Amino acid sequence: MESESFWREFRGICEDRDHGASELARRGLAILAASAHSTVAAEGMALRAQLTAQARCLQEARPSMAPLRNLLNRWCQALTAMPLEDLQSARDFAADAAKVLQTASLQAVTEIAENASYLIAPGSTLMTHSMSSTLVACCRVLKSLGLRMIVTESRPLYEGRRLAQLLSQWGVITTLITEAQMGLFVREADAVLVGADSVLTDGAVVNKVGTHLLALAAHEQQVPFYVCCESFKFHGQGDRARIDLEEMEPAELGFDAPGPITVRNVYFETTPAHLVTGWITEAGVIDSWGAPPHLVSGG
Amino acid sequence: MESESFWREFRGICEDRDHGASELARRGLAILAASAHSTVAAEGMALRAQLTAQARCLQEARPSMAPLRNLLNRWCQALTAMPLEDLQSARDFAADAAKVLQTASLQAVTEIAENASYLIAPGSTLMTHSMSSTLVACCRVLKSLGLRMIVTESRPLYEGRRLAQLLSQWGVITTLITEAQMGLFVREADAVLVGADSVLTDGAVVNKVGTHLLALAAHEQQVPFYVCCESFKFHGQGDRARIDLEEMEPAELGFDAPGPITVRNVYFETTPAHLVTGWITEAGVIDSWGAPPHLVSGG
Repeated sequence: MESESFWREFRGICEDRDHGASELARRGLAILAASAHSTVAAEGMALRAQLTAQARCLQEARPSMAPLRNLLNRWCQALTAMPLEDLQSARDFAADAAKVLQTASLQAVTEIAENASYLIAPGSTLMTHSMSSTLVACCRVLKSLGLRMIVTESRPLYEGRRLAQLLSQWGVITTLITEAQMGLFVREADAVLVGADSVLTDGAVVNKVGTHLLALAAHEQQVPFYVCCESFKFHGQGDRARIDLEEMEPAELGFDAPGPITVRNVYFETTPAHLVTGWITEAGVIDSWGAPPHLVSGG
Repeated sequence: MESESFWREFRGICEDRDHGASELARRGLAILAASAHSTVAAEGMALRAQLTAQARCLQEARPSMAPLRNLLNRWCQALTAMPLEDLQSARDFAADAAKVLQTASLQAVTEIAENASYLIAPGSTLMTHSMSSTLVACCRVLKSLGLRMIVTESRPLYEGRRLAQLLSQWGVITTLITEAQMGLFVREADAVLVGADSVLTDGAVVNKVGTHLLALAAHEQQVPFYVCCESFKFHGQGDRARIDLEEMEPAELGFDAPGPITVRNVYFETTPAHLVTGWITEAGVIDSWGAPPHLVSGG
């Protein structure tokens, strides 16, 4: 990949407001697979050094997203076994390694959807906040089982409206509400199901801001609160300090403050583990968080 | 008041989305004061019957708003002492009685603001949700004491933006956030201060939807949660069944759902008393709710 086009892709990941952490991690792998073939390098060792540097840059693009760090760490580890003698073989090896990890990530999503379908009774009403590709995969499996959904609009960029449209195209009976109505509507849900950008070592869940409020309301109303999270989303030990709750442009709120008003637009927040009923992973449902599970794929 | 103009004012109260319960109650009294002078009636008895009927109509315009019921009940009670012999004296009496109650309501707001200023330390950061005229009165008193405010935008009609503008004109350092960020920002507040549309006999507070979520978050973070409420806002015994959590036009959310998506736009919700640290009334601060206080002015 030409240096210029790499940086264009890098900026695309920095600025992306539409996709969740898993999708962006898979996109990072796709960028690196393309880069493996196109990066200018005289020999294998130089290629590996450049690709590793690109992976590190992509990880820093979204520091709060554990999948980006974990999947790209795995890829960097895989590159240590790269055949360095033949440049073309080295390129093929790096690209194939990225594709293997993309497939593993998608496979994890499929398995989570299957695990969710064992947990959620047919005909259930689920409530969610924001839009997660893993949650969408769960809904795709559950939609033939009489699923009903309550979806928040998800200010400021309204990704919940897009989710509601998708669900309604699938024939799922869908209710759309403002975030302010979460406390009122959670009592109509059989369970809450949300995605995650990252899961910390103590089980706390980093996800779109508003998730903590929904978890508090679900807890008060004794509605189970489940998080769909591939093990790629688990932070490794010692990562706690790296959590960066990204803040975006105040202009996204669409309010042109005339005076000296400070408009804040923090995107993510952390929901403590004691409010989570279960973490639905590709390996099964974790229903109480003790030590970080064996699934952790930190680096 | 001509019948036609009475019904125009009635519709104005039904459709008002900008003003809180106390302001609408005072507007109701102003409508009745005007009506006392202009309603067509041959003699005092007929006048009283018509005015009482108009008051009952206005109460039904917004059934969830206790001040409208309580203040207009008081006015109907006052009309029992109306001098019926002379029509002009009867008109004057009814109009004066309405003005006395308007003044009492405004006086209660002033006293609440004073009571709040004893409770809130100078230089405090307060957080609120939605816009309440009683809260605005409190901020007017506190603004010279280094008040800082965190204000939610308050979807769907963004009354929080108007509040932020007003506060910023007063020189109050103001932060505006989405409702979704309430859980994140409540920990930066020294206290939460909200208005109320009504207070139920068990101390539960009817207020703009989203208040319950803010109360849950404040409770979790051990941030005191205060409600400014004139005693006119207290429901009488047996009123519980009359609570009607008004729902407005889905179109207010600005989402033209293409498919069969149900858009919900409930305006009010009830926050349970155990989440309330104190009810700031004109008579003082109630810090634990036992039996309905003596202040109750139901009818």
